[in-house]
Amino acid sequence: MQYGMYFLEQVTPYEALYRRMNKVLAAGRTKFQDYFIFQTGAFGKVLVLDKDVQSTERDEYIYHETLVHPAMLAHPSPRTVFIVGGGEGATLREVLRHPSVEKAVMCDIDGELVEMARTLLPEWHQGAFDDPRAQIVTEDARGWLANHPDTYDVIIVDLNDPIGEDNPARLLFTVEFYELIKERLNPGGLMAMQAGMILLTHHKMHPVVHNTVKQVFRHTRSYHNYIPGFMLNFGFIVASDAVDITGLSEGTLEARILERQLPLKHLDAPYIEAMFVLPKDLKEAIAAETMVSRDAAPFWLTDEGDARQSQA
Amino acid sequence: MQYGMYFLEQVTPYEALYRRMNKVLAAGRTKFQDYFIFQTGAFGKVLVLDKDVQSTERDEYIYHETLVHPAMLAHPSPRTVFIVGGGEGATLREVLRHPSVEKAVMCDIDGELVEMARTLLPEWHQGAFDDPRAQIVTEDARGWLANHPDTYDVIIVDLNDPIGEDNPARLLFTVEFYELIKERLNPGGLMAMQAGMILLTHHKMHPVVHNTVKQVFRHTRSYHNYIPGFMLNFGFIVASDAVDITGLSEGTLEARILERQLPLKHLDAPYIEAMFVLPKDLKEAIAAETMVSRDAAPFWLTDEGDARQSQA
Amino acid sequence: MQYGMYFLEQVTPYEALYRRMNKVLAAGRTKFQDYFIFQTGAFGKVLVLDKDVQSTERDEYIYHETLVHPAMLAHPSPRTVFIVGGGEGATLREVLRHPSVEKAVMCDIDGELVEMARTLLPEWHQGAFDDPRAQIVTEDARGWLANHPDTYDVIIVDLNDPIGEDNPARLLFTVEFYELIKERLNPGGLMAMQAGMILLTHHKMHPVVHNTVKQVFRHTRSYHNYIPGFMLNFGFIVASDAVDITGLSEGTLEARILERQLPLKHLDAPYIEAMFVLPKDLKEAIAAETMVSRDAAPFWLTDEGDARQSQA
Amino acid sequence: MQYGMYFLEQVTPYEALYRRMNKVLAAGRTKFQDYFIFQTGAFGKVLVLDKDVQSTERDEYIYHETLVHPAMLAHPSPRTVFIVGGGEGATLREVLRHPSVEKAVMCDIDGELVEMARTLLPEWHQGAFDDPRAQIVTEDARGWLANHPDTYDVIIVDLNDPIGEDNPARLLFTVEFYELIKERLNPGGLMAMQAGMILLTHHKMHPVVHNTVKQVFRHTRSYHNYIPGFMLNFGFIVASDAVDITGLSEGTLEARILERQLPLKHLDAPYIEAMFVLPKDLKEAIAAETMVSRDAAPFWLTDEGDARQSQA
Repeated sequence: MQYGMYFLEQVTPYEALYRRMNKVLAAGRTKFQDYFIFQTGAFGKVLVLDKDVQSTERDEYIYHETLVHPAMLAHPSPRTVFIVGGGEGATLREVLRHPSVEKAVMCDIDGELVEMARTLLPEWHQGAFDDPRAQIVTEDARGWLANHPDTYDVIIVDLNDPIGEDNPARLLFTVEFYELIKERLNPGGLMAMQAGMILLTHHKMHPVVHNTVKQVFRHTRSYHNYIPGFMLNFGFIVASDAVDITGLSEGTLEARILERQLPLKHLDAPYIEAMFVLPKDLKEAIAAETMVSRDAAPFWLTDEGDARQSQA
Repeated sequence: MQYGMYFLEQVTPYEALYRRMNKVLAAGRTKFQDYFIFQTGAFGKVLVLDKDVQSTERDEYIYHETLVHPAMLAHPSPRTVFIVGGGEGATLREVLRHPSVEKAVMCDIDGELVEMARTLLPEWHQGAFDDPRAQIVTEDARGWLANHPDTYDVIIVDLNDPIGEDNPARLLFTVEFYELIKERLNPGGLMAMQAGMILLTHHKMHPVVHNTVKQVFRHTRSYHNYIPGFMLNFGFIVASDAVDITGLSEGTLEARILERQLPLKHLDAPYIEAMFVLPKDLKEAIAAETMVSRDAAPFWLTDEGDARQSQA
Repeated sequence: MQYGMYFLEQVTPYEALYRRMNKVLAAGRTKFQDYFIFQTGAFGKVLVLDKDVQSTERDEYIYHETLVHPAMLAHPSPRTVFIVGGGEGATLREVLRHPSVEKAVMCDIDGELVEMARTLLPEWHQGAFDDPRAQIVTEDARGWLANHPDTYDVIIVDLNDPIGEDNPARLLFTVEFYELIKERLNPGGLMAMQAGMILLTHHKMHPVVHNTVKQVFRHTRSYHNYIPGFMLNFGFIVASDAVDITGLSEGTLEARILERQLPLKHLDAPYIEAMFVLPKDLKEAIAAETMVSRDAAPFWLTDEGDARQSQA
Repeated sequence: MQYGMYFLEQVTPYEALYRRMNKVLAAGRTKFQDYFIFQTGAFGKVLVLDKDVQSTERDEYIYHETLVHPAMLAHPSPRTVFIVGGGEGATLREVLRHPSVEKAVMCDIDGELVEMARTLLPEWHQGAFDDPRAQIVTEDARGWLANHPDTYDVIIVDLNDPIGEDNPARLLFTVEFYELIKERLNPGGLMAMQAGMILLTHHKMHPVVHNTVKQVFRHTRSYHNYIPGFMLNFGFIVASDAVDITGLSEGTLEARILERQLPLKHLDAPYIEAMFVLPKDLKEAIAAETMVSRDAAPFWLTDEGDARQSQA
């Protein structure tokens, strides 16, 4: 390590990552969270919210393709999409690549962050905020969904993990919230979500979220991918009452990718299928999980990645 | 980060990882390399050689199952195995789990390291060094293979990446070395190898190694897996003139796992298949690679992960 | 920073020091504190207790000469000495260099630390523990002094700062403790003590300790010196009812150094005098201090170096 | 250490300091050097040039009072002053506090740095750049002095240490440069200079510089002070053919401070005298030094603080 500026990120309570910053583009605090945007040598621009890297210029396509396209491709013709979180606009950008989409509502509580992304992170949104099909709402997503009876073909949940007993995001990881999402899905609709890092099998985030979602949806499917900018393997979930995504043939996926002319850089049909195949230890950890997160006792994560439940 | 002892590892020239050490079990230098063995909070014991973490107590099973079993399972009945490197004994341990194995020769140049592993890393070798089928050689593997005409059903190459222009391991990543390996394979034999981290597609290790191996073997197949203790996605290769591992049916793999009563914790037949499915960007990087590493101009890696060739 | 092992010390809440460890000689926890002994490139062996470097092989002579000799030289013929703390034996070593000393009692609560110093830190004690004039007591110094009515010519207090509201050392920095020390001094006796780092004038340790000692002794004199191994300027105090050390002439100090044949490496008479001359801002901070630490409300330091008082 | 932004400074090759940055005000490279200006919790704004902290808002008064006032007070009525380096303007500010000063020429090669200081570091210059008595020159100081025959009552040299064999500052630490300075001093004139960190006695910067200056001036006096923002004890030198500063009485210093109504925060007459009293080991190291830096073989420092000589 040469003299200079670094960003310190605590990956686990025992492992910390120093990222060299060539230039600091922004650093401060919105009403909701700390933010840092800086330039690095290997990953380009990096966006950090509170203590975690959210995405990097060089590899954000991997994260956002992984989050968005499996669910969107599992739907024969998604017209309306709702995004929970996703403030920097790249999830929205990938959603809008599906030509059948007529309306995409992105609901992020942090309006300041959205404004900052608009000016400082054009590589992420690439103009998506200005697409006439996009609607940007800066409110609490659960409250907004509760108050707006509109329904959607796909709902994408792009939230940070609920680390810490006081984490306000805890109520966005409960059975009740997933039930609300299910109510807001059209027949044939699907939910996709980021579902926690998969570091060692004692990291409980993914098993607990999977088990909670499974209480609500008939088909709950986990998948995973390595996100270079996080230096971590991440879990994702697609859930639906109508569609079992793992039942789709490779040919169907392939055909839809072609039909929709999706400019995919990381995914193709075989790789999408492969992401849904989990290693044995992770499958066993999911199968063994008994915790269910509910509004009365939402779960939260310790710094060690263990799951606890207590009254909100 | 609390006060205390840490190990600093430079993951890239721009990103560095600090691992908290609860206890330092050994630190020093053999004739060939620096070594550090320490106890950590999340990963148990950690073994570092020179600047890179080699494996950790908590997740070494992931690395070693991934390296060993695909090739071993692709062979109907492996009786003889040769291991290049693998000093701590866990590769040997996994090899010996296949009941058909009659002889396993492990050849690591660093005898001091092997001795240290014997006493300090019993969780790795689990007695494998004392298995009557095992033979431990402490010599340069290329020299030894050149001088000993014995042939094997499976040869497993477990080496560190050739980082730096003066890296002595450069001659273990050339066409000529792979040709020597091929000569030492029995009909129907396979080679398996660790083949570099896959961080961003400009990390050239994996594409160059794949392209070099491909000059020698009819079937060269890349696969990948996330290794938690490295915080990195790693590439591996199985190569053979006789067998295309991706042509094996899931049923065959499944049957062999059962038959051999392998106590796998991370792998099962579907996951082995899925590891061979690569993301689109990586496939393209491999396909586009033109560099071939030869004794006359062996390749080496810059700290940035770029590949260079120069006279050895 | 190259790859390898480091010790992280939080110098302030905002500044942290990484010291490269070539070798870890010991690390663990006694009944009372964490300890680390390691080898470094510039400072030789380093001893850390809890979160702070205590002393280093290369520069411990600076710290121990500074702590011990001014008070010892201010006494015409010190025969009996009591040391509060000082577990590694170097304070004792310097005390025993004064040929008039007949008895030196060292009282450190941490017997395990003393044993470890005996075997691992010979450069510190240099055999002092085995001097027939030395008596080693492993008890709480305040309790021991209260129960033993013996009196001394010099009492030396070598303690860590009372950082944190729960710090058990708080009762070793109060008016009542200094009164007990005064009762245990012979007529003409002096107390010397380590009295906190002097980083910026808002670091209150030194002013508060000075002001507390001043409530008890007629002559309370602060002095300071730079301790390289700490990378900090440290404060010390000599206090006495009988002797004002700043009244001693340079000639007297010089004569006593010669007479006693002290093998001083860092101090001589002019430098001893100069250490008692404080910069203007520090003198003003001491003069302005009003806090007095008492058993009923002993003071403690925040991590920022601010002083608080609360019930013990 | 909490997550967030840090500045890494290598204090020695074995010890590194991380300073938490609350905000980065500027970072980049002028034609001559890297620069970083950031806000910290304990020291306020910090200015770093290349790899070393230059000064901090909270303690720069200590450094600049120490550098400027001893020499200025040793002159009965300094009218003209030349400053070598000193780009942020605080040396100039302290110089201009002496009411007899009619002209102060500050010569710093880095005009971009001076411009940046003007807007970003008002706490340092406090308007000194706009004082009608100040003249700012952005040229190489040695070249400028060689080409301009004007002479001065005091010349102040405020340069970074010549670390590294290629350091362009090497020719500003030679006998020939000090001879040029002497030629540019009026009768009765003095030179003052920053003269290197004093960490352990094997750090050769101060002894070598002292020995080199001594070849040129009749009276060469070293003094030292602790600079909190550096976490280091620093050496300084006052040299003159006419005046031996250590011969000045405390009364004279006191009277001049009063007469000139200097608003000193850290220095007063007794402390100025005390700074010139060196510890025994440092005096011995200076006395034992034999290296002399000359244009034909200017000295430079290794990272370890050792001194070498080679052709420029």
